[in-house]
Amino acid sequence: MEKIMLASDYQEGAHPQIMQRLLETNLLATPGYGTDSFSDEAREKIRAACACPLAAVYFLLGGTQTNATVIDALLRSYEGVIAADSGHISVHEAGAIEFGGHKVLTLPHHLGKISAAAIAAYCENNLHDSNREHMVMPGMVYISQPTEYGTLYSLAELTAISEVCHRYHLPLYVDGARLAYALACPANDVTLPDLARLTDVFYIGGTKCGALFGEAVVIPDAALIPHFFTIIKQHGALLAKGRLLGIQFGTLFTDDLYLHIGQNAITAADKLRAAFAAHGYAFAFNSPTNQIFLKLTDKEKAHLDQLVESSFWEAPDADHTIVRLATSWATPQDKIEALLCNL
Amino acid sequence: MEKIMLASDYQEGAHPQIMQRLLETNLLATPGYGTDSFSDEAREKIRAACACPLAAVYFLLGGTQTNATVIDALLRSYEGVIAADSGHISVHEAGAIEFGGHKVLTLPHHLGKISAAAIAAYCENNLHDSNREHMVMPGMVYISQPTEYGTLYSLAELTAISEVCHRYHLPLYVDGARLAYALACPANDVTLPDLARLTDVFYIGGTKCGALFGEAVVIPDAALIPHFFTIIKQHGALLAKGRLLGIQFGTLFTDDLYLHIGQNAITAADKLRAAFAAHGYAFAFNSPTNQIFLKLTDKEKAHLDQLVESSFWEAPDADHTIVRLATSWATPQDKIEALLCNL
Amino acid sequence: MEKIMLASDYQEGAHPQIMQRLLETNLLATPGYGTDSFSDEAREKIRAACACPLAAVYFLLGGTQTNATVIDALLRSYEGVIAADSGHISVHEAGAIEFGGHKVLTLPHHLGKISAAAIAAYCENNLHDSNREHMVMPGMVYISQPTEYGTLYSLAELTAISEVCHRYHLPLYVDGARLAYALACPANDVTLPDLARLTDVFYIGGTKCGALFGEAVVIPDAALIPHFFTIIKQHGALLAKGRLLGIQFGTLFTDDLYLHIGQNAITAADKLRAAFAAHGYAFAFNSPTNQIFLKLTDKEKAHLDQLVESSFWEAPDADHTIVRLATSWATPQDKIEALLCNL
Amino acid sequence: MEKIMLASDYQEGAHPQIMQRLLETNLLATPGYGTDSFSDEAREKIRAACACPLAAVYFLLGGTQTNATVIDALLRSYEGVIAADSGHISVHEAGAIEFGGHKVLTLPHHLGKISAAAIAAYCENNLHDSNREHMVMPGMVYISQPTEYGTLYSLAELTAISEVCHRYHLPLYVDGARLAYALACPANDVTLPDLARLTDVFYIGGTKCGALFGEAVVIPDAALIPHFFTIIKQHGALLAKGRLLGIQFGTLFTDDLYLHIGQNAITAADKLRAAFAAHGYAFAFNSPTNQIFLKLTDKEKAHLDQLVESSFWEAPDADHTIVRLATSWATPQDKIEALLCNL
Repeated sequence: MEKIMLASDYQEGAHPQIMQRLLETNLLATPGYGTDSFSDEAREKIRAACACPLAAVYFLLGGTQTNATVIDALLRSYEGVIAADSGHISVHEAGAIEFGGHKVLTLPHHLGKISAAAIAAYCENNLHDSNREHMVMPGMVYISQPTEYGTLYSLAELTAISEVCHRYHLPLYVDGARLAYALACPANDVTLPDLARLTDVFYIGGTKCGALFGEAVVIPDAALIPHFFTIIKQHGALLAKGRLLGIQFGTLFTDDLYLHIGQNAITAADKLRAAFAAHGYAFAFNSPTNQIFLKLTDKEKAHLDQLVESSFWEAPDADHTIVRLATSWATPQDKIEALLCNL
Repeated sequence: MEKIMLASDYQEGAHPQIMQRLLETNLLATPGYGTDSFSDEAREKIRAACACPLAAVYFLLGGTQTNATVIDALLRSYEGVIAADSGHISVHEAGAIEFGGHKVLTLPHHLGKISAAAIAAYCENNLHDSNREHMVMPGMVYISQPTEYGTLYSLAELTAISEVCHRYHLPLYVDGARLAYALACPANDVTLPDLARLTDVFYIGGTKCGALFGEAVVIPDAALIPHFFTIIKQHGALLAKGRLLGIQFGTLFTDDLYLHIGQNAITAADKLRAAFAAHGYAFAFNSPTNQIFLKLTDKEKAHLDQLVESSFWEAPDADHTIVRLATSWATPQDKIEALLCNL
Repeated sequence: MEKIMLASDYQEGAHPQIMQRLLETNLLATPGYGTDSFSDEAREKIRAACACPLAAVYFLLGGTQTNATVIDALLRSYEGVIAADSGHISVHEAGAIEFGGHKVLTLPHHLGKISAAAIAAYCENNLHDSNREHMVMPGMVYISQPTEYGTLYSLAELTAISEVCHRYHLPLYVDGARLAYALACPANDVTLPDLARLTDVFYIGGTKCGALFGEAVVIPDAALIPHFFTIIKQHGALLAKGRLLGIQFGTLFTDDLYLHIGQNAITAADKLRAAFAAHGYAFAFNSPTNQIFLKLTDKEKAHLDQLVESSFWEAPDADHTIVRLATSWATPQDKIEALLCNL
Repeated sequence: MEKIMLASDYQEGAHPQIMQRLLETNLLATPGYGTDSFSDEAREKIRAACACPLAAVYFLLGGTQTNATVIDALLRSYEGVIAADSGHISVHEAGAIEFGGHKVLTLPHHLGKISAAAIAAYCENNLHDSNREHMVMPGMVYISQPTEYGTLYSLAELTAISEVCHRYHLPLYVDGARLAYALACPANDVTLPDLARLTDVFYIGGTKCGALFGEAVVIPDAALIPHFFTIIKQHGALLAKGRLLGIQFGTLFTDDLYLHIGQNAITAADKLRAAFAAHGYAFAFNSPTNQIFLKLTDKEKAHLDQLVESSFWEAPDADHTIVRLATSWATPQDKIEALLCNL
């Protein structure tokens, strides 16, 4: 049996409908930098899907870039961003936030999440610290939906975080690199309109969710970030042929494709979770979306390595390895079935 | 007659062979971040085309991003980059170089170019300035081939600049955003192997030269920039689906496509130049590549605006406007002919 | 005759009254970081001298530091600072402004000055440039009083600049490193209350004007820069023993000392200017304050070098050298007389 | 009884011998920026005290500034600094390190210290993390002697840290803001020559140890940081009247003054520790130098607040407060005795 590639969810190209549209429009000449009609249309469709007709929508190219650009745009020079210590910006972005001059103020995570209470406690402590003017001030909050652990913030949790953020005048920013896998997940109760209502900025991930590349930044109150176009340019994040992003997101937001594109991944992941459980595999932690975290013995790992390409997560002790499997919109169900047969 | 779109050279998508390869490979699963075999192959082909088998080759997404990342990688914190005052990094990159902490040290340009003598004089003055330790030190030289004025450095000029740079221990970096239009230009005598031999870093432009997006950075001495991968990531310039760049550049460097892809633009531009001259139009300045700069009276401008979409360059006085027309690899020759008939 | 030291105006220590106060208070224990009563008093005296009772006043340590900190505090990340190309921040601050991420947008100087008209023209061009969103936006204006050429902005000129700045919503910042030499100069008609009325931020120079070190930043509208204390700390510009600055500025603003402290320098410079003119020396340019710029033949230079330590300014041609002489609050008049006898 | 001021160790001015020297030299004219003979002399004396005749020595103004400048000079853009999570740079410098673009990579502290083993484990994990090229790379190690908790690294501990640092090619930098209080402490076995031998950069604190202000950076291998003068200037950390630092450090390093100046503080702190213990006060943690950390009940705090001005450290629970008392070179022993009588 050929190994199934589940190391990550950005291993394939784009959804066939996107490729089709890119092909159809390939030789048209349009103005650059997102001023084209495809981009206008895509922005309009995203506003509609978010039930937020006045939102500003901008298209950037990738996750680290989007995080660095949005965070730099929201913070004043002396402010930092509150995030889980497991957050993508805290660990895996090669210092892109610090490159922009900002400190990541980390809170301990619980399965990738931070709570409204922990944010409030941090702010309260900070406000009462007599040294606070010598310290980096919290200037915004960053969370991911789903998180790096594949877990989800519930609507109740997100509402509570939003309330705390607004109480302390901190913009709330949600990294939606894998948002389609939240939206397609039965356990999820947070919709796009909820995100538009409860956050100050969020991005709708394209790269991991059916596009060749691209992330759509939604700013419900368009006036929040003046001159964001120039800020994007300054960060090297402005695509000359901006229509490529417009066409991709226009397609993803036609006929609710984005709301459904993650289902294939969830279906595959659910099958895998059931099968791993049935075969007695241990889960490092539970997650309901497209990521599966197994805690393997050396023998289990040797067996699994012959069947599937996973990614290393961590080594909790000398005898075990935690690996991550990530399904995607493109994961072939027949290969999943074949894998299940050989477990 | 439908207006012909000549406002810029990034208005169309990608060369059909590129689209074909993207389509063929779309559902393959490959590892990310440029560690795939398509990227390996493309790097190998670029090394061969540059006659530089040990060069390091990295793929980034766009010009501003590439300039900001390379310049930040080459300079120490207290160093600046010498460039023409007309250089892209000096004017049109929204402060991306300064965002990275570096000053652009400008020299007056002549048709977009700076000379070896001017660079040497700058360095010499700097070395003898008793205040030099209070000033930004020159740390590298940036030029473009072709320049923002569509002009070309000759091999003799480039050789002289290279010699001056090495005399003063300044890495020489060439921005090749439009390099294909130099390589296809009869007036050009600088080859890819020349660039690899005479510069310390240069980039081969994809965005304006037949790719959807992408620039290939060539570092002839691979040891020059340690950890460039991480620097790229920190700048938000690392593409998750790196193979998209590998596939595009692999195609551009198959059967010398990149060496010829600019010919269509040069042919079209030459026809236009001849026709404009024949019709008595004034050129703001001469350039042999794919850009044409006309100095128009108001009447000429009104006429031309009906036929062609150009871009505003500057208003030299109250009665004239300088506009730029840019042809590309995709400019339809039949539309050029139609334009010529109506001049 | 012993050579007289006129290379710069920061060669001596502090005014004796300052030394006296530092000595008297030396072993008192006071809270740090400018929260002591000496600093409070000094702030109050400066507000009074500026006729600006609601101004915020902060003490920093030196000129480059003050410029970098204020400019970083005033600008958003995508904005630059308009300045004369001869401005201190443009040339002699080792890239401190760019280190904070900002571009210096230079205008050609005339004897160290820029005009309201030139600023207006720059802003107007920028507003009408179709590429403006790809360029660094002007975010403030920087001028020096007196300038690096020892020249003065008149009240009319400053008023015009202030009007242009406010028309284009650009904060106006005045570097007063040598402000005492303007205030003591008969040719000057700009008072401290004028500066407080016409600018958004200015600093009163201590280092070159009688203090051991220190610059007092005045922000007439205290709300203009929130959290400036933290910004100062972030820039490493917060003095632990802040009272040292409070004591120094408190002394300088007792009995109008700061308004008169520059007279000794002006008297000495006027004597020198008259004597140099009488002896047929050529002035490189005229300035009414404490700096004198002579254009010397080699023979004149050899003679002068035996009498006075000056500083090299530039070599305009092979046969001449421009040197600068700077008198100060501490220049001994008897040494000036001795120099005049030997000219 | 008048309250004794023990909130911090930077509440007084300078050692009387320093004031005397500043007064004597006040009206001399000397060249600026540390090029004067007083600074040369002070550098020579420091080299001698460190038994490191080839060291480079630079004078900066304060601790945050020195840390930010040295760390920025040592790190490449993609590197971070390993530090205790309690380290001054981690918490109390308002983001000055991040302002320079660098991440602080924190390790859990034990009484303010980190161990060689913990540093080695961090580096080892990092080297083996398959994602390491996506993460900030460790580029140096920062520790304080004494630490923020008043504790000391022993010679054995420092030697072990030095060995680990060199094994992983990480420069070791020691923040000696309170170094005089280590050197005067009987529990200390690390000398200045040890620091010069075992570290790559360290600074000798002046601000808290008898100077008005100033920190002396020692770089045992002078070639380690090229152009540090310009880097200092770029950070706004270059004092125009550099001789003020030369005179102060020259005095501190005459007749071993710096080695003894901390004794007064240690004597006072030892008396206080003995008395607090005798009166049944609880110590939050033990430290042998000039800082004392008491864990007070509300009643104890109310009593103590009438006798001494301390500084708030943290509130470990609802019924206790941890406060810090810091003695200094200038703490009057008679006031200590008076305090002891009233405990």
